[in-house]
Amino acid sequence: MVLVQANIDDMNPEYSSYVTERLFEAGANDVYWVPIIMKKGRPGLMLNVLAAAERLEQMEDVIFTETTTLGLRYLQANVHRLGREFVQADTQWGTVSVKLGYYKGKLVQAAPEFKECEAIAKRHGVPLKLVYEEVRRTCAGLKPPAADT
Amino acid sequence: MVLVQANIDDMNPEYSSYVTERLFEAGANDVYWVPIIMKKGRPGLMLNVLAAAERLEQMEDVIFTETTTLGLRYLQANVHRLGREFVQADTQWGTVSVKLGYYKGKLVQAAPEFKECEAIAKRHGVPLKLVYEEVRRTCAGLKPPAADT
Amino acid sequence: MVLVQANIDDMNPEYSSYVTERLFEAGANDVYWVPIIMKKGRPGLMLNVLAAAERLEQMEDVIFTETTTLGLRYLQANVHRLGREFVQADTQWGTVSVKLGYYKGKLVQAAPEFKECEAIAKRHGVPLKLVYEEVRRTCAGLKPPAADT
Amino acid sequence: MVLVQANIDDMNPEYSSYVTERLFEAGANDVYWVPIIMKKGRPGLMLNVLAAAERLEQMEDVIFTETTTLGLRYLQANVHRLGREFVQADTQWGTVSVKLGYYKGKLVQAAPEFKECEAIAKRHGVPLKLVYEEVRRTCAGLKPPAADT
Amino acid sequence: MVLVQANIDDMNPEYSSYVTERLFEAGANDVYWVPIIMKKGRPGLMLNVLAAAERLEQMEDVIFTETTTLGLRYLQANVHRLGREFVQADTQWGTVSVKLGYYKGKLVQAAPEFKECEAIAKRHGVPLKLVYEEVRRTCAGLKPPAADT
Amino acid sequence: MVLVQANIDDMNPEYSSYVTERLFEAGANDVYWVPIIMKKGRPGLMLNVLAAAERLEQMEDVIFTETTTLGLRYLQANVHRLGREFVQADTQWGTVSVKLGYYKGKLVQAAPEFKECEAIAKRHGVPLKLVYEEVRRTCAGLKPPAADT
Repeated sequence: MVLVQANIDDMNPEYSSYVTERLFEAGANDVYWVPIIMKKGRPGLMLNVLAAAERLEQMEDVIFTETTTLGLRYLQANVHRLGREFVQADTQWGTVSVKLGYYKGKLVQAAPEFKECEAIAKRHGVPLKLVYEEVRRTCAGLKPPAADT
Repeated sequence: MVLVQANIDDMNPEYSSYVTERLFEAGANDVYWVPIIMKKGRPGLMLNVLAAAERLEQMEDVIFTETTTLGLRYLQANVHRLGREFVQADTQWGTVSVKLGYYKGKLVQAAPEFKECEAIAKRHGVPLKLVYEEVRRTCAGLKPPAADT
Repeated sequence: MVLVQANIDDMNPEYSSYVTERLFEAGANDVYWVPIIMKKGRPGLMLNVLAAAERLEQMEDVIFTETTTLGLRYLQANVHRLGREFVQADTQWGTVSVKLGYYKGKLVQAAPEFKECEAIAKRHGVPLKLVYEEVRRTCAGLKPPAADT
Repeated sequence: MVLVQANIDDMNPEYSSYVTERLFEAGANDVYWVPIIMKKGRPGLMLNVLAAAERLEQMEDVIFTETTTLGLRYLQANVHRLGREFVQADTQWGTVSVKLGYYKGKLVQAAPEFKECEAIAKRHGVPLKLVYEEVRRTCAGLKPPAADT
Repeated sequence: MVLVQANIDDMNPEYSSYVTERLFEAGANDVYWVPIIMKKGRPGLMLNVLAAAERLEQMEDVIFTETTTLGLRYLQANVHRLGREFVQADTQWGTVSVKLGYYKGKLVQAAPEFKECEAIAKRHGVPLKLVYEEVRRTCAGLKPPAADT
Repeated sequence: MVLVQANIDDMNPEYSSYVTERLFEAGANDVYWVPIIMKKGRPGLMLNVLAAAERLEQMEDVIFTETTTLGLRYLQANVHRLGREFVQADTQWGTVSVKLGYYKGKLVQAAPEFKECEAIAKRHGVPLKLVYEEVRRTCAGLKPPAADT
């Protein structure tokens, strides 16, 4: 994997969410922005893109075309992504997908699918935080798959 | 005093130091920028200007002319500025102005004039931090004016 | 107008865009978040909502229901919004709405409607920044309305 | 209430947690720091203190004595704090205090006492997030007091 | 290239622009500061310096002499800088230098020389944003060099 | 050394100081958090951990167990730590430890032990900044060890 970075201080910051979206479409694994202070004390944004090395050219295409940067740098990175599994959590308002993460065969993460929680909160007029937490609750008793270490 | 604020997410951030400078020229007491997150998750900057109420129009002139904002807001503020006095501190590299601040008749602050410290550091090839600290040291023994209360 | 603020350090930050959306639906004029450092050095977010004083209760409803805060504060604020007008800008890819802002009868701002620029950029496969800038260009010759001052 | 603010760009940032602590001891209701960009593009910190108006002098004592600022400003603020109640939540590792918040007679917040969760996590060698979430779970069924609106 | 980083929480932040300047004089390719939260919740600044590997020692000289850090780390980085060319843009107020950037033989960037735009804005009493945008406009029709590939 | 990074947008930010503490206990050399803007404009925090490569597994244990992340990345880093020495500084309120840093045999840093300065400031009721600066003053005349080069 490569971590591509570009420091940008002369771009309309409105563009940033569009740039993020384009980078994901072009195959980025992750995209994030860091507020920084550049030359002459200018408030800028550092664009960060994590992508497979063979995607570097597509990332550059988007960055040079859609931002105002005249250069970028990249660093070699290794990635450790947890084994994942999707389950359906039953709540009083319907089912919600949950992304489970396993580390050394143990269930360590349970991330409710955010968009589905939002949709339920809107449809049923309940606070989002209640929905989200009820989903998490249903995962509390989950066990790792039988065949774990 | 008024504290004038404008949230800006569609301006080239390079302009910000120029805007700051123009506001000081137009009589602002203080100008600072705060990184914020605006509508649709856009990274923006909140411009803050502290000025006397009778300067509000001049501040608006600069803000509407030099930034891209379509509106601003202002809050009433009271200000407590310490009684100040300038002294000259003698260092091995020459004298440096120091701004002293008195609170209830007691000397509480001693702020070396930054530009003069920088000039000495460059001229004599010594680390800026040494210059700055030596200036502060010479202030350590300073006493409040005799007639304090 | 009131500026409502709540410091939040124990909420899943994923909720923030949903909270923003709900506040706009409930009549907020502006919503933004400021990264702050709270008690015990905890990284938190300060929610800021600008709203008409008579909307304060609706704002509180959303804030107390959707965030985890146990309190909020509000400050009185005055607002100066520029006189606005919408025009259509003709570009090689179709027309785009532009929000014009007048200060003392003079045209000072011309803000292309961002979503329309994005839609054109996607539909025509051109960089967003080209679309945005062409729209701005068509506004360069705009004059303030005859009856200005 | 007053919201006291001081912009500081020449203080060792290590001092900030000590200043925060001293302000709480002197009766502040809340203290937080905001990263800002000051004159000449300097990265600074804005100290914010929320306190009762009659505590203003104690706040000034700490700010002028312990920070390097030569001035401060204050804004009038109104505060809406939720009605609060403490309950004990039973978990498999012992009881934990929870601060409940009521809005219009309805239970809207349940904030586990953080230090107690930390202590349990350390003592029992369980992830803090499990402790915290189990405490929240026990609050899920809580009802507002009988005599609500 | 190397990316040198140092986390600093005990330095007067006023020094930072001087440190930046000294690093550029010593041959840095880029210098920027990132607001971070360090041990015990202290607000700090991470200094970042991008430089050729053979300049590492000069970078260290400045960092250890001018900041308060007791250590630094460096990461290997690769850099992709666009082919550049300078042109002169004619505006109604005189000519301005523009840095052009070519990616795969196509003109993708046109960055007006900021200091020259500022000088014109001051001399002619026109908003900086008008100057900057007029310069960009003159670049809109620019074509990539004939012999592109 | 490795620099381990995880972007987190769905964790209660209150956990962060606990996570930091656990990572130091597990052998991290440094831990810091960077405010970032993630997918869909969400305000997140990037956790950064600097550790010896052979400690990577312990770091992962803490990160996957105590945070909500589903993945992390790591970069190779080299570290240059100054030669260090501890001395005792005598002040009017007692002695304070000072960490000295040597670069090319020259004394370049003198960092007072912060906790000891705090303890003195509290015990003697003097401003922390006075204590800290007096400690620094006593270091001003320190010379590098005789056998330097």
